[in-house]
Amino acid sequence: VSKYAPLADYLRAQSLDSVKLGFAQIDMLVNGLPPSARNHDAWWANSRTDDTHSWAHQWIAAGWECGSLDRANETVVFQRILAGLESRVQCFWWVNHKQTFKSEFEGGYIWSPKTNKNGARNRTYDNLTQVKAGDVVVSFADGKIKAIGVTKQHCSEALKPEEFGSAGANWADRGWLVPIEWTALSSPISPKIHIARIQPLLPNKNSPLQANGNGNQGCYLAAISSELGRLVLDVASKINPDLVQSIQDLKQLVEADFVENEIQVSEVIPETEKGQLIRSRRGQGIFRLRALAIESRCRITGVEDQNFLIASHIKPWKDCANDERLDGCNGLMLAPHIDKLFDRGWISFSDNGDLLSVPAAEQVMAAWSVDLKKNVGKFSLGQCRYLEHHRNKVFKGSIEARS
Amino acid sequence: VSKYAPLADYLRAQSLDSVKLGFAQIDMLVNGLPPSARNHDAWWANSRTDDTHSWAHQWIAAGWECGSLDRANETVVFQRILAGLESRVQCFWWVNHKQTFKSEFEGGYIWSPKTNKNGARNRTYDNLTQVKAGDVVVSFADGKIKAIGVTKQHCSEALKPEEFGSAGANWADRGWLVPIEWTALSSPISPKIHIARIQPLLPNKNSPLQANGNGNQGCYLAAISSELGRLVLDVASKINPDLVQSIQDLKQLVEADFVENEIQVSEVIPETEKGQLIRSRRGQGIFRLRALAIESRCRITGVEDQNFLIASHIKPWKDCANDERLDGCNGLMLAPHIDKLFDRGWISFSDNGDLLSVPAAEQVMAAWSVDLKKNVGKFSLGQCRYLEHHRNKVFKGSIEARS
Repeated sequence: VSKYAPLADYLRAQSLDSVKLGFAQIDMLVNGLPPSARNHDAWWANSRTDDTHSWAHQWIAAGWECGSLDRANETVVFQRILAGLESRVQCFWWVNHKQTFKSEFEGGYIWSPKTNKNGARNRTYDNLTQVKAGDVVVSFADGKIKAIGVTKQHCSEALKPEEFGSAGANWADRGWLVPIEWTALSSPISPKIHIARIQPLLPNKNSPLQANGNGNQGCYLAAISSELGRLVLDVASKINPDLVQSIQDLKQLVEADFVENEIQVSEVIPETEKGQLIRSRRGQGIFRLRALAIESRCRITGVEDQNFLIASHIKPWKDCANDERLDGCNGLMLAPHIDKLFDRGWISFSDNGDLLSVPAAEQVMAAWSVDLKKNVGKFSLGQCRYLEHHRNKVFKGSIEARS
Repeated sequence: VSKYAPLADYLRAQSLDSVKLGFAQIDMLVNGLPPSARNHDAWWANSRTDDTHSWAHQWIAAGWECGSLDRANETVVFQRILAGLESRVQCFWWVNHKQTFKSEFEGGYIWSPKTNKNGARNRTYDNLTQVKAGDVVVSFADGKIKAIGVTKQHCSEALKPEEFGSAGANWADRGWLVPIEWTALSSPISPKIHIARIQPLLPNKNSPLQANGNGNQGCYLAAISSELGRLVLDVASKINPDLVQSIQDLKQLVEADFVENEIQVSEVIPETEKGQLIRSRRGQGIFRLRALAIESRCRITGVEDQNFLIASHIKPWKDCANDERLDGCNGLMLAPHIDKLFDRGWISFSDNGDLLSVPAAEQVMAAWSVDLKKNVGKFSLGQCRYLEHHRNKVFKGSIEARS
């Protein structure tokens, strides 16, 4: 057991999201802080990757980060790493793959060595350690943006991928890897064509592009502003109409995976409840049984055979409190295609059962013979509470109306 | 590192499913077998649970079991634990929950202490350690069979569930837990009504029922014959028509989870390929991109918008070799409800594109406005190879024709 485990346990036991500790308190918990904790800010860095910094791994694994430090007065504030990605700023990144595009695109990752050949640090390699799950990455190679990705996890140490072959011959074997779910652009974009709009938004240091729109040789992974990120998404989605939804789906998947992991490692939730919470994400277990007790058929297609129905959460699983995840009133039994329409917010329902839909989904609904004018019958008070959330936060109709 | 790791590594490196080893060979691998290996059969037992038997955990973790032993001639045959559940005998079990039914049903598990109160072993507790993933469990409480379950994993050590409360006051805290995915019977069955058929099939020792059909107090988990297991399924499915499909779905889910875990822990598959193989199970990653390059729309509903389509394996993911899991020719882009029909074998296609279906699915297909007489267009040679597998092994039409 690590010397710092008692500090991690102490943080885990907190009920609030922030706690201020005196060094003397921590001395007692861990049987004495080392001198460097009193002498150097760097001791308190939230490092996920530096092996010589294992105490930080302990508090990060417990779900906490060191938020602010006052060495003069010997106090430190720890803050809980908040679940859900909405609670933090989403970052945009730009990767120049060069000759490793195919490997990294097909493999679903980006990889860099830790340092330059001469052992010097390279900011655009170090950047991999700053990536968090749910960030958006613009993929650039051969003069074109060919894909946009969503990062699935933060960085980990990894050996150089074998598939790099001779393309990676000059790089050290040990490096950083960030797993990424890519969406290919069916129509790639040439930044040169849009350089007048892009150029003013390029960063001054470590820019991924030169002012003329050519790639910047020395730059692997660059941090870009959200203005530039949104500009790229905007340009790309005009000629790749599926892109925005696809990125959104990926982000939601990453977010739900994040929540599932939090449940998995929780030391508060009993094991048997963990299993039910995780099974409920797939519409299984006790959640399904409870939903079935309330809804026996698909409200739209009328199918009653359970084998063809999905137990779908009205309020999305990832946004629920744990009791809401298992509440039968938060479930509808839907045919798989209706579940897809409902889950992604293309359709919703009024409390009295009128089907609501957005124009963008009408073509698909017609192809699937879903009647736009249907009333599916009233909902109970318990269901209406969740439906209100669905209409306000999931249904694209109200989201479009707001924007 | 365990002394026995080299034996496990040796087994992992085998290409065949069976290997005969002399004790002398193993001596060399592990730097000398202990005397008990030469003197006692029990040393070679494939124990998953006995902590003092850690060498067996090594070879089991490597995916191997000790198959037969010839101590006189100092040889032993190891056999690979075959992936997929078809390759091994499925076992039926019967659990008498008594007062813990609600906890165990809702929690999705069975739990027993390791021994009786007086410390004596109890065969019907020991039985929990014999359960394997994919076994079928009959759940009996209050005089009725109320649920049938499929075991998700083998047994592990677990503390007594808190939710037992006073019902478990007399049991020791440490025990065995087997996670189970239950299907509730909407119409529970009273064994007493069927006792004339059940009684002759009851085991002589450790029977879950008395001859009159009452539960047997001393018995928690009983092994029952496949004849009795099938009789229960048969009786239950007559008044619970969804049951058979539901059990079948659960078994396939467990099987796919098993395969996914094998990929996850493999020491042969490179990390980046593991990610792609696992993502392909959900129709994501490189498999989706490759399928999209071949099929741009849903063959049945004509929908082209990728956001509404699932990349579905023609030959089921769990039954594929790794290259087949990522082969674009093994993918169809299908609307979610068509994916469900195809994936579960309610429909299939002839090589020239005629839609095949089974009468049992016609009502659902009508509710979903799926045209039974459709021709969806020819398939390529590469696709036909997988379609043949689908028609022969997945499509219920041919399975019904054979049985």
